[in-house]
Amino acid sequence: MLLMLVGLPARGKTFIGRKLARYLSWLGYRTRVFNVGSYRRERLGSYQPHSFFSPDNLRGEEARRRLAELALEDALGWFSGVGDVAIYDATNTTRERRDFVRHRAEREGIKVLCIETICDDEAIIEQNIRETKLTSPDYLGIDPEQAVRDFRARIDHYARVYEPVGEDEGAYIKVVNVGRQVVTHRLQGYLPGRLVFFLMNLHIVPRPLWLTRHGESLYNLEGRIGGDAELSPRGERYAQALTGWMHDHATGEYGVWTSTLRRAAQTARHLPVPAVAWRALDEIDAGVCDGMTYEQVREELPQEFEARQRDKLRFRYPRGESYEDVIQRLEPVIIELERQQNPVLVVTHRAVLRALYAYFMDRPPEDCTRLDIPLHTVLELTPRAYGCEEKLHPIAV
Amino acid sequence: MLLMLVGLPARGKTFIGRKLARYLSWLGYRTRVFNVGSYRRERLGSYQPHSFFSPDNLRGEEARRRLAELALEDALGWFSGVGDVAIYDATNTTRERRDFVRHRAEREGIKVLCIETICDDEAIIEQNIRETKLTSPDYLGIDPEQAVRDFRARIDHYARVYEPVGEDEGAYIKVVNVGRQVVTHRLQGYLPGRLVFFLMNLHIVPRPLWLTRHGESLYNLEGRIGGDAELSPRGERYAQALTGWMHDHATGEYGVWTSTLRRAAQTARHLPVPAVAWRALDEIDAGVCDGMTYEQVREELPQEFEARQRDKLRFRYPRGESYEDVIQRLEPVIIELERQQNPVLVVTHRAVLRALYAYFMDRPPEDCTRLDIPLHTVLELTPRAYGCEEKLHPIAV
Repeated sequence: MLLMLVGLPARGKTFIGRKLARYLSWLGYRTRVFNVGSYRRERLGSYQPHSFFSPDNLRGEEARRRLAELALEDALGWFSGVGDVAIYDATNTTRERRDFVRHRAEREGIKVLCIETICDDEAIIEQNIRETKLTSPDYLGIDPEQAVRDFRARIDHYARVYEPVGEDEGAYIKVVNVGRQVVTHRLQGYLPGRLVFFLMNLHIVPRPLWLTRHGESLYNLEGRIGGDAELSPRGERYAQALTGWMHDHATGEYGVWTSTLRRAAQTARHLPVPAVAWRALDEIDAGVCDGMTYEQVREELPQEFEARQRDKLRFRYPRGESYEDVIQRLEPVIIELERQQNPVLVVTHRAVLRALYAYFMDRPPEDCTRLDIPLHTVLELTPRAYGCEEKLHPIAV
Repeated sequence: MLLMLVGLPARGKTFIGRKLARYLSWLGYRTRVFNVGSYRRERLGSYQPHSFFSPDNLRGEEARRRLAELALEDALGWFSGVGDVAIYDATNTTRERRDFVRHRAEREGIKVLCIETICDDEAIIEQNIRETKLTSPDYLGIDPEQAVRDFRARIDHYARVYEPVGEDEGAYIKVVNVGRQVVTHRLQGYLPGRLVFFLMNLHIVPRPLWLTRHGESLYNLEGRIGGDAELSPRGERYAQALTGWMHDHATGEYGVWTSTLRRAAQTARHLPVPAVAWRALDEIDAGVCDGMTYEQVREELPQEFEARQRDKLRFRYPRGESYEDVIQRLEPVIIELERQQNPVLVVTHRAVLRALYAYFMDRPPEDCTRLDIPLHTVLELTPRAYGCEEKLHPIAV
């Protein structure tokens, strides 16, 4: 599927495009963003004055059209390789351009879904220009006020020819003011539904997210996987130390989410905030291997052990889960985390933390199975417009 | 939450209200519909000529206002009892009326979400009038053509004063032409998101749905629960007989969905359509009781056995699932089944079938645990506007 972004400059297209790419990649769809602005910067150099973007500038228009088509061809090429979803990040503000893209894609048998970002909240536009455009390579070394004026003139050029997506243009989603309003047209099916749900719960209030594994459990001591063991004495010390750490670091209200397993609930039990228990945060279900050590799995189920080594992401424990299964069931947790305006502390398990981390840090699903998430450490993630800040806080116990 | 329906007559409010009630009840929200039309029929008798609904008819208007308020008070009373969600099914076509409802509800601390149904497709309106209004008690014994004229005049009365829901009226969902377009405004959170997803995938093409348990398995013979056993010879005969039955009964294309368990896949293996395997269709996970007989559970885990007898819906097998868990994980299957335009044969397991059946037949969740779903029987369900037709087809093997 080709997701064709539509909208004036500084309406959050790139923000939404990257967020969707991260979300879809995490869910296992091979997704790539094709950003026409990057093609322009690569081929024509960074700075172009606003006049380059004027519809009256025929040479500029021709150059921009050529770049847009280059990006489109690459996006279509993505499908003949391994790609599932291409996100075509350009203004696509005229109907003629959108028709061109749609016909070109449909000739290749690729479905198109328009995602139009509309913003009439001047404060959001201003914030977007100042936070993302002024720091972009387009305005490197240029006086900020002059850059803002130039960028506003660039927007005006597009606004003169802008035609919003019409009801006769097939399936679309319109996202107004960062998800405050969402309009869907002729949309059906699982994936488009997921996209709408995701877009509805977007916001741009930055707040930290704290992730931690439960404290050391009695099973950890024995090297056994799964189970529903209690904390070890050292794990219990972590539960107490974590409470102290949160007391020092969390200012204001925050939420606490745990799995339904004892070792996670016990890790959160001294916190001043009652924990919400999510079954979706339970550790990967090791099925028939539950309670075994890896050594036992290797000896007693050598074929399974080997299959797991070969493809840890897709390997499903007999009668249990794969990492892919864990990602699927974590999806509602991700939506809820995106939606929260307050910070949240999540106390969960290694495989689950790996999957959550991969989502926030935009790591490919394959990385999920390898990420090192040490015990007795709080991982602090702060989502920003284009990525996440990461800090590790080991807590001595 | 109070879901306030908004829309002209014959726009599918009652259809959507009932569908939402069924879906929400099934998910475990105690939900009830308060339909002002029913209050009118109960208190003033069935037939009222269209002039009763004219905004110029002051006595009619006063009577209608009083009925609407009666229904509203009952809806609000639902929350002081056991209710989670009330669906207030009335036209609510003026802003004044909606403001009244919203203020009244908010005074009780109840959140309001407007769901406006809009339809400008004359064919759908005509179909709605003929299929649902003419068979309603309002027009019992009245000549159909005269009834249609009267009903159209009734619509016109409402259309004169109709004000669509505005952006300053808080959170809303607008459903245009049975989900062809869906607009959401200021919507956030899990439940509203579920509602949008559900409404997006509505349609009114009737098609049968066939549900069956897998053929008899080796575990069935031994009375053991769970496991991943193969079919017994008799189960294999059912797999063959089911193929013959489908050959005789299914006209045109259909889909086949199974669980990922062997006994389900084997039951579908002779069908001419390749089966789609859903993990969400797997049997309830009996956790530590997997592979036991009920007798063994009673002897070895008497406390669990007793807890299960007390509350089978919420009882979660240690390290396994409850019926409630099964319902939650089946939700995407329900959305996909609602969306399908072709018939589907679902080959799954007793607990899962009970949950699916409860959704389609609008049975309370408590019934899930008791419904009798015999082996070697195809259950044929055909969803209609206001309910489901049911046929049982035992297949001798």
